[in-house]
Amino acid sequence: MEEKLNVVPFVSVESMKKLVHRIGVNPFLNELAAEIEKDFLRWEQFDKVARISAHSEEGVIELMPTTDGEVYGFKYVSGHPKNTRSGCQTVTAFGLLSDMRTGYPLMLSEMTILTALRTAAMSALTAKYLAPKGADTMAVIGNGAQSEFQALAFKEIVGVTKVRLFDIQCSASMKCARNLRGTGIEATICNSAEEAVLGSQIITTVTADKQYATILTDNMIGPGVHINAVGGDSPGKTELHKNILLRSSIFVEFPPQTRIEGEIQQLDADHPVTDLYSVMAGKRAGRTSKQEITLFDSVGFAVEDFSSLRYVRSKLAETGFYEELDLLADPDEPRDLFGMLMGA
Amino acid sequence: MEEKLNVVPFVSVESMKKLVHRIGVNPFLNELAAEIEKDFLRWEQFDKVARISAHSEEGVIELMPTTDGEVYGFKYVSGHPKNTRSGCQTVTAFGLLSDMRTGYPLMLSEMTILTALRTAAMSALTAKYLAPKGADTMAVIGNGAQSEFQALAFKEIVGVTKVRLFDIQCSASMKCARNLRGTGIEATICNSAEEAVLGSQIITTVTADKQYATILTDNMIGPGVHINAVGGDSPGKTELHKNILLRSSIFVEFPPQTRIEGEIQQLDADHPVTDLYSVMAGKRAGRTSKQEITLFDSVGFAVEDFSSLRYVRSKLAETGFYEELDLLADPDEPRDLFGMLMGA
Repeated sequence: MEEKLNVVPFVSVESMKKLVHRIGVNPFLNELAAEIEKDFLRWEQFDKVARISAHSEEGVIELMPTTDGEVYGFKYVSGHPKNTRSGCQTVTAFGLLSDMRTGYPLMLSEMTILTALRTAAMSALTAKYLAPKGADTMAVIGNGAQSEFQALAFKEIVGVTKVRLFDIQCSASMKCARNLRGTGIEATICNSAEEAVLGSQIITTVTADKQYATILTDNMIGPGVHINAVGGDSPGKTELHKNILLRSSIFVEFPPQTRIEGEIQQLDADHPVTDLYSVMAGKRAGRTSKQEITLFDSVGFAVEDFSSLRYVRSKLAETGFYEELDLLADPDEPRDLFGMLMGA
Repeated sequence: MEEKLNVVPFVSVESMKKLVHRIGVNPFLNELAAEIEKDFLRWEQFDKVARISAHSEEGVIELMPTTDGEVYGFKYVSGHPKNTRSGCQTVTAFGLLSDMRTGYPLMLSEMTILTALRTAAMSALTAKYLAPKGADTMAVIGNGAQSEFQALAFKEIVGVTKVRLFDIQCSASMKCARNLRGTGIEATICNSAEEAVLGSQIITTVTADKQYATILTDNMIGPGVHINAVGGDSPGKTELHKNILLRSSIFVEFPPQTRIEGEIQQLDADHPVTDLYSVMAGKRAGRTSKQEITLFDSVGFAVEDFSSLRYVRSKLAETGFYEELDLLADPDEPRDLFGMLMGA
């Protein structure tokens, strides 16, 4: 990438697809998880702030910025569950990296695909620390756009080989099972969430409705499981019955954000939770017994997007999978923006 | 613009230049000011939040979101005064509009040029309410990238025909004077800020250094002038001596942001200031006497960028000055993001 001050590398949806195909989706998930882990191990270096949300009846639009002091990154992400009715995606996202010394953007990228990959990579990375040893079966409740990514990441990073699928729309489960053919994952379509959790050591909930839902009730959760609660990620949007939370050891990304958005919005503001970064760093315990119920109250944090954008950027030079975007004004004399504008 | 779900209209620097040329820079400033005024007159409809800043030694990167409930907008903007030493812009910016009902982006646009235009339009709009009647002479202290835009907007909207330029680098003043030739504005280059303010009814300060500077001292400010303080817009970055503030009636965009970033960061947190929207709505007085010193403590607020982006978007269909950006994933079946990704 040569020096053209006006130009910012842009990773389109098409380029992101090419990149995933070139690397392979499994290695991509693996490498992404490793990048996220590396950044969680230097957690103190990041400026952290709860994301900035604009809510409407239909959904939410969020900005998620962070910086490690050298590079700045942010993601724009929207979540509108009813979109699928009109053929649109629930989630749209894009993100940017820039240079903290100059403020100049370094890369703009689509992030709808990248968010799906990073969310799954983060879930599986967390389960590597928290799930019971030897777990090979996972219930996946909610079989929308995120479900296959979760299944693949858990196969790659945790060793899950069997998934038990349930969705209130059977067609979604069938789509998920179809997509998982040939991946080495055995998919079973279940008729209820109760059936899906049977024999599962890991339970992933990844539904989209913006409401207080009860995807999992207390009686469905036996001792020793790991719950990967992905869908409850917004004020007024939860998936688990409160009693499950009270029986679980709860692990979170960034408490000030999760208290507002996660399952724990149902609990007192001082209910004990454990920071994932401290578990990864070996400073706090993860799972401490076979009987313990561990719960990753996933909402998605800016550092994960930062890691993902940096990972993508690291591949640009070798793959050339980007376009050049004329995003920045570049007058010959930096003080002469007006002259540049008015010039021919 | 036909319905292609993956595509977002993108206004590049080149397209923005074309748009300004097509409309003409003076009508553009005029229409932009009118759009901003309209939005300030419906101020209560906006979600307002102080911008989210990431500071470094060299500068700041900010995200500025807002929504009127129907449309969402945000701007990314960086300010790095030392950039000019290496031939880069102090400010880089781009922005986005999206649909609150779906979260789908409606337009991505360069905003380095657009920010320069909107900042000047906002300054002049404010002066229309606050400057002494018949003001025709303006001091412009700091003759960098923003200076010509200020001069033109004040000519167009306030009736200023004479500008008195001062910059610590004479070459900047010469550049500004040269650019203003043929615009109907008479430019005089001055040797000091003191000289520039002589005979000026309006004083614009628009310097870039990130520090507590004293561009104007108390003795330079006579009764009855309007001060348009544009450059002090970040914690630790001010331009006016505190005593000037204490003698002035101070007008601001959004107090929670200006208290942190504006000249008034030098004052007590409860020092009285007047919201500009209430002046525009006729609910609060603007200038009340010929002797009064009025001060617009400008920092730039998200609503102004929102107005500007909407203005630009309103011109796209008729001008065609945009490109199509492959920013959004668009699977045939919205739940089948994975299938789209893995498909050929």
